[in-house]
Amino acid sequence: VTAPAPMPHAMSPGAILQLIRAGHAVTRSALIETTGLSRSTILQRLGVLLASGLVVEGAGGRSPNGGRPPTMLTFNEDAGVVLAADVGARHARVAVCDLGGRALAEEEQPIVIGDGPDAVLDWLLGTFDRLLVQAGRPRADVLSVGVGLPGPVDFATGRPINPPIMPGWDGYPVADVLAEHYDRPAVVDNDVNIMAVGEHRVHLAGLEHIVFVKVATGIGAGVITNGRVYRGTHGAAGDIGHIRSRADSDVLCTCGNRGCVGALASGSAVARQLAADGLDVSSAVDVVALVSQAEPRAIARVRDAGRLLGEALASVVSVLAPTAIVVGGEMAEAREPLLAGIRETIYQRSLPLATRELAITTSRLGRRAGLVGAATVAIEHALSPGRVDALVAARMSTAP
Amino acid sequence: VTAPAPMPHAMSPGAILQLIRAGHAVTRSALIETTGLSRSTILQRLGVLLASGLVVEGAGGRSPNGGRPPTMLTFNEDAGVVLAADVGARHARVAVCDLGGRALAEEEQPIVIGDGPDAVLDWLLGTFDRLLVQAGRPRADVLSVGVGLPGPVDFATGRPINPPIMPGWDGYPVADVLAEHYDRPAVVDNDVNIMAVGEHRVHLAGLEHIVFVKVATGIGAGVITNGRVYRGTHGAAGDIGHIRSRADSDVLCTCGNRGCVGALASGSAVARQLAADGLDVSSAVDVVALVSQAEPRAIARVRDAGRLLGEALASVVSVLAPTAIVVGGEMAEAREPLLAGIRETIYQRSLPLATRELAITTSRLGRRAGLVGAATVAIEHALSPGRVDALVAARMSTAP
Repeated sequence: VTAPAPMPHAMSPGAILQLIRAGHAVTRSALIETTGLSRSTILQRLGVLLASGLVVEGAGGRSPNGGRPPTMLTFNEDAGVVLAADVGARHARVAVCDLGGRALAEEEQPIVIGDGPDAVLDWLLGTFDRLLVQAGRPRADVLSVGVGLPGPVDFATGRPINPPIMPGWDGYPVADVLAEHYDRPAVVDNDVNIMAVGEHRVHLAGLEHIVFVKVATGIGAGVITNGRVYRGTHGAAGDIGHIRSRADSDVLCTCGNRGCVGALASGSAVARQLAADGLDVSSAVDVVALVSQAEPRAIARVRDAGRLLGEALASVVSVLAPTAIVVGGEMAEAREPLLAGIRETIYQRSLPLATRELAITTSRLGRRAGLVGAATVAIEHALSPGRVDALVAARMSTAP
Repeated sequence: VTAPAPMPHAMSPGAILQLIRAGHAVTRSALIETTGLSRSTILQRLGVLLASGLVVEGAGGRSPNGGRPPTMLTFNEDAGVVLAADVGARHARVAVCDLGGRALAEEEQPIVIGDGPDAVLDWLLGTFDRLLVQAGRPRADVLSVGVGLPGPVDFATGRPINPPIMPGWDGYPVADVLAEHYDRPAVVDNDVNIMAVGEHRVHLAGLEHIVFVKVATGIGAGVITNGRVYRGTHGAAGDIGHIRSRADSDVLCTCGNRGCVGALASGSAVARQLAADGLDVSSAVDVVALVSQAEPRAIARVRDAGRLLGEALASVVSVLAPTAIVVGGEMAEAREPLLAGIRETIYQRSLPLATRELAITTSRLGRRAGLVGAATVAIEHALSPGRVDALVAARMSTAP
């Protein structure tokens, strides 16, 4: 559970750590200059961070006046670990990561989300514990847990809300169970929000506004505005799978309407179309395989799906004017025909001002986007100034 | 020009003023308790605010222990004025407002935006000066200027960018001209962003995410997320007039595409349709007049326009999940038939989660939304802590 962290002092150890971690000030004198704090205060705060292991002293830097080189301060990415999981409908990717986001142990396993939260979370906790052993880290090293789930999640409480493909999970206190097991905060979110964060922080950190579109069994989007996940009322933002992309379509969507882009351009929709064409296809993975075999009917269907998706995304562009649209999920592996269709419609339908700098690409993190995102949100939560202050206080009080 | 304000000290006079203005701490002892500052520091900061006239002492409050009642501190809304203008294509509303947003002098005048920036701004400055005289306030009382323009504006520089209906204005330094004339900061923005701010602050301040839709000659939206105007890349967010609401339409839009909601459901589009029906109509105002006369063909056309607008707004709901959609602009005065059409399609097309709490209403500020918004952005800019610190310093240095 993301219980409110204690309010950090403006220049508490946690705030000092942020300056060091971001590279804004990495020597004692730079910290004094940047913060305006006295030398004695900086030395005290830094002493606490060094003693708790969150900061280490590195090799000497270059002295500005030719004297003794100053000692460089570095955030110690090895000072703890986070547990990260991208839980899908049929498989899950799980890892123990260091505080730089590197996986120390990782594995992917088939699961069945419909087995319900008790079974799936039991399995997840067992897997986390096993990967900790594999990584050679004690449970006490865990600073936080980050998990993505394949459905809507009430972010504040970390509980799924009316998830259509997760029977038995509605309202289940997923974050509470994880947080209690490790006695650490747990962050739980919708998988596509988590994927958006991962892609943004690793590859697009300089951009303020991006939309991550997951095209798999269904279609959904994670929206990042001003560098942060935008959730909207009841966390319903980004649910673009029900934007109407063909008014004359008679294909029924799971929502009860017709013409929704999710019912016409998702992986399962294209698989159905290709099966009707007489091909042996039952899933998005099969579609991608056919495209990679250069099957012309598959390429044509995927490109058409891209065009329909582009219709919906042109509306997204009109509303949000993002700087990048990143396409992920299984269908993104079909790459060129899908992207070409999307680009064709977006450029045709959008105003030049809104597309002047717009990048439309596939996810560079690919299948690891969700896992990387889960680790990222866990690390960001664990290293927020208030959390660091609490951690430092706890480590100092138990120090020998 | 919105030149960067000096960085305010965490608890500078400007920050103290914010606590008083928001009602968070309105006595000396409450300020000491809230800020954690020493009594002498608070008395010094407060002395500066009182001497500069931004804060006044009011009648005594109630003493918690039955002793002498504490003196109440109040933000003095009369300590300065802002100049506000909502400049449209064919008319402008201009006012001198106090720091509570009340108009001390206000008027509406016909203008022709196509006369170009030199002529229009000359007229605007003359009108501001005349209204200042009318309000009995010297030019030195002006703290800032806020102006809305009927086209895209680069917010950072206050210059129109490729405005389609403002010949001669492209790149013109509107904010610079206003700021130089009064030697005060000027905020210039797109009219619909300004209207969104006005409606939000006055009637919907408790909501985080709202969309203000202006339906007049064209269609556009101002988007407020997390309480602030969301602009997107190049300020292109909210340009919803080009969302396709009818794929089979052959009506050409100004953008060169067909089926754009702005070409099918704007005031001018409905006027054109009614003229083709044989009615004597040439503008949104005429359409509204016919609706208020209960002309059935006008009611039907307006309701159909609402349905088409609802198609586009259903996409907006899928992307943003706002808590309120507010419809303004001239066509909003047709009220029920327009709202009924919009609601019909949004509720039909959107997921229940996204519309569970969604309010869909017409603007309560009506024709004054733009002017109120312009005054609001001017006041918010003038009373930001950094600006207040600079103002206080200037007033103290020129004090007798």
